[in-house]
Amino acid sequence: MSADLPAYQCASCGRSHVPAAGRWRCDCGGLLDLPPRPISWNPRPADHTLWRYQDAIAVPGRAFSLGEGMTPLVRAAADGTDRTLLKVEYASPTGSFKDRGAVMLVALARLLGARRLVADSSGNAGTAVAAYAARAGLAAEIFVPAGTSEKKVQQIRGHGAEVTAVPGSREDTARAAAARVAETAAFYASHVYNPYFYEGTKTYALEIFEQLGQAAPATLVLPAGNGTLVIGAYLGFAGLRSAGLIDRLPRIVAVQAERCAPVARAFAAGRAETVPVEPAPTVAEGIAIGAPARGARMLEIVRATGGTVVTVAEAEVTAARAALARRGFWVEPTGAVAYAAARRLRVPGSPYAEGELVVPLCGSGLKAPG
Amino acid sequence: MSADLPAYQCASCGRSHVPAAGRWRCDCGGLLDLPPRPISWNPRPADHTLWRYQDAIAVPGRAFSLGEGMTPLVRAAADGTDRTLLKVEYASPTGSFKDRGAVMLVALARLLGARRLVADSSGNAGTAVAAYAARAGLAAEIFVPAGTSEKKVQQIRGHGAEVTAVPGSREDTARAAAARVAETAAFYASHVYNPYFYEGTKTYALEIFEQLGQAAPATLVLPAGNGTLVIGAYLGFAGLRSAGLIDRLPRIVAVQAERCAPVARAFAAGRAETVPVEPAPTVAEGIAIGAPARGARMLEIVRATGGTVVTVAEAEVTAARAALARRGFWVEPTGAVAYAAARRLRVPGSPYAEGELVVPLCGSGLKAPG
Ligand SMILES: Cc1ncc(COP(=O)(O)O)c(C=O)c1O
Ligand SMILES: Cc1ncc(COP(=O)(O)O)c(C=O)c1O
Ligand SMILES: [Zn+2]
Ligand SMILES: [Zn+2]
Repeated sequence: MSADLPAYQCASCGRSHVPAAGRWRCDCGGLLDLPPRPISWNPRPADHTLWRYQDAIAVPGRAFSLGEGMTPLVRAAADGTDRTLLKVEYASPTGSFKDRGAVMLVALARLLGARRLVADSSGNAGTAVAAYAARAGLAAEIFVPAGTSEKKVQQIRGHGAEVTAVPGSREDTARAAAARVAETAAFYASHVYNPYFYEGTKTYALEIFEQLGQAAPATLVLPAGNGTLVIGAYLGFAGLRSAGLIDRLPRIVAVQAERCAPVARAFAAGRAETVPVEPAPTVAEGIAIGAPARGARMLEIVRATGGTVVTVAEAEVTAARAALARRGFWVEPTGAVAYAAARRLRVPGSPYAEGELVVPLCGSGLKAPG
Repeated sequence: MSADLPAYQCASCGRSHVPAAGRWRCDCGGLLDLPPRPISWNPRPADHTLWRYQDAIAVPGRAFSLGEGMTPLVRAAADGTDRTLLKVEYASPTGSFKDRGAVMLVALARLLGARRLVADSSGNAGTAVAAYAARAGLAAEIFVPAGTSEKKVQQIRGHGAEVTAVPGSREDTARAAAARVAETAAFYASHVYNPYFYEGTKTYALEIFEQLGQAAPATLVLPAGNGTLVIGAYLGFAGLRSAGLIDRLPRIVAVQAERCAPVARAFAAGRAETVPVEPAPTVAEGIAIGAPARGARMLEIVRATGGTVVTVAEAEVTAARAALARRGFWVEPTGAVAYAAARRLRVPGSPYAEGELVVPLCGSGLKAPG
């Protein structure tokens, strides 16, 4: 079965690597990708999860479904007056879009014969990996930064995973996870490093394509921390274009918090690579990534689609969250980041004022502290 | 438009009443129902919300959707070894199945020209009504028992609704809401009294029918407080039977907490009506209803389908919640009640051991305190 899995391909040296439990980057240190390929468009109408797109996904993982995907796409205004559409990602099994990718990693781990998963995350990704590991009957150890909220830790433990709190920065947590992977035979279920995660997040694009009646929107506005949704959404639409199903990619607008904006800075400076920044505290904790491993990829995607990178201020995020709530949508602060940016982009005369614009509501308001 | 709305019918005296904002029971004091009717089966394949069943729903309310319905139906065991299926109702916009009914009441209120809604609830129903009222641009006032958790109150306020805390029992809260309705022109968005709520909860049945490949399961296990899911699920399958789409109704098993079990007591005693009980504190707060207004209806339904009423002990609920978490499902304690009962019913030799058995996971674990 694992013989059918596409090989990893190093983004730096081009070498290819057969997927194996311990492999998460190239020997040269490069990031691993999967070779791009056209989407095989053959949705299964009776399946109301993202597995309706099984023919477009490199992993056969349906068995481990908790019901992820096929999230609602609704108009921002109930009276239908604007063409801003909201993709309600928080109506996912664990309350965030990370379920799309987590189910892929867990299915892959099973195919590779792993018994044990290691992941690092301060929040939604770690919770999702813990839930899907439980579903698949695999042991999991989740590394979190010390100080992660008790409620999240409780849920991860509830799913039977071990929690290891690591003092220091988000990068220290990642290093501790990688060290554990190196010393054991565990599968590293990393949403940052493992490109199979994008097999899941690319279904975000496939669903929008189907929900719009087999069309691409003019614009996707997406939050950008490590870029798992930016990259996945791009791969989905790029695959639809290679297959001749759409003519033009949607413009991708990546949104960062003003207080942690390495991608926005590099974009503004015309650079191909991000320069690490020290994140200042922000309400948008889910995207406070100072040194995104795939920063260069995000820059490339935004440029290739004719999009841009914007930042939002703390007050804009808070105001956007309140505005969403007044319309019936309940998100955590990070879940309001893309909507905050969209409100600013939709002004008359802006290139983003035309056509359908899709904004994800990435994480549930029930996850917010307080 | 409202001319097309079916009239209310009094369950006691049979009189019929044109739906109007202030009308929520008969002048004789009787409960209002809608006349039963066969399901018009014509799902709209491109709509991945419960509005795909618009032809079977008496309210045209699609505009106010937050993406409710079409929740996942997944096998309890990922290895496919048992025929217990879980309906993941917590993957709903506000995190519980109450969204199904709330969207109907809000749509009805708009059709009736109401500007203001009143509702009473300690939890999920009140949150759902507040969210949908916000979606529809209607003002809402939600009456809650004093001591309701701050997090719930915050969400209701976040949606722009007024919160009024009422000292005393759950019944005192309901009386305060009804008094406010009487003194104003508000629409009473009551999940207990307004039968249009069941236009929403009946889609629970329609989805299962479709998800099983146009078949009914042998058994539905359902939590029973006020009975909104018991009654809705029954109406859905009864409507499918009237339409000749199924031969036999699933057995309906209603589940109550041992500590608050008026329906179970009446069932065991062979009575047609419930006798009010004083609820003892229970982890299953969502079903702690000592005097369910529609208790007689629940008894009738359980008997008509050859089902039963069972109770679960506190420790069983807690154990069921933990067992679900170990399988990847995260529910609030009330959301584990039906699963707790199902585990007991699935023993060899029991009439409930045969065929598909469907259990709803009604409320998100993210809603649980702590
Ligand atoms: C709610 C929410 N939104 C957005 C993101 C950003 O995703 P990414 O870091 O993959 O760009 C995250 C990441 O955890 C998140 O939890
Ligand atoms: C999570 C949950 N489960 C079950 C129920 C029971 O629903 P009902 O009172 O309509 O029987 C409720 C009601 O609020 C609930 O919140
Ligand atoms: Zn390399
Ligand atoms: Zn009457």
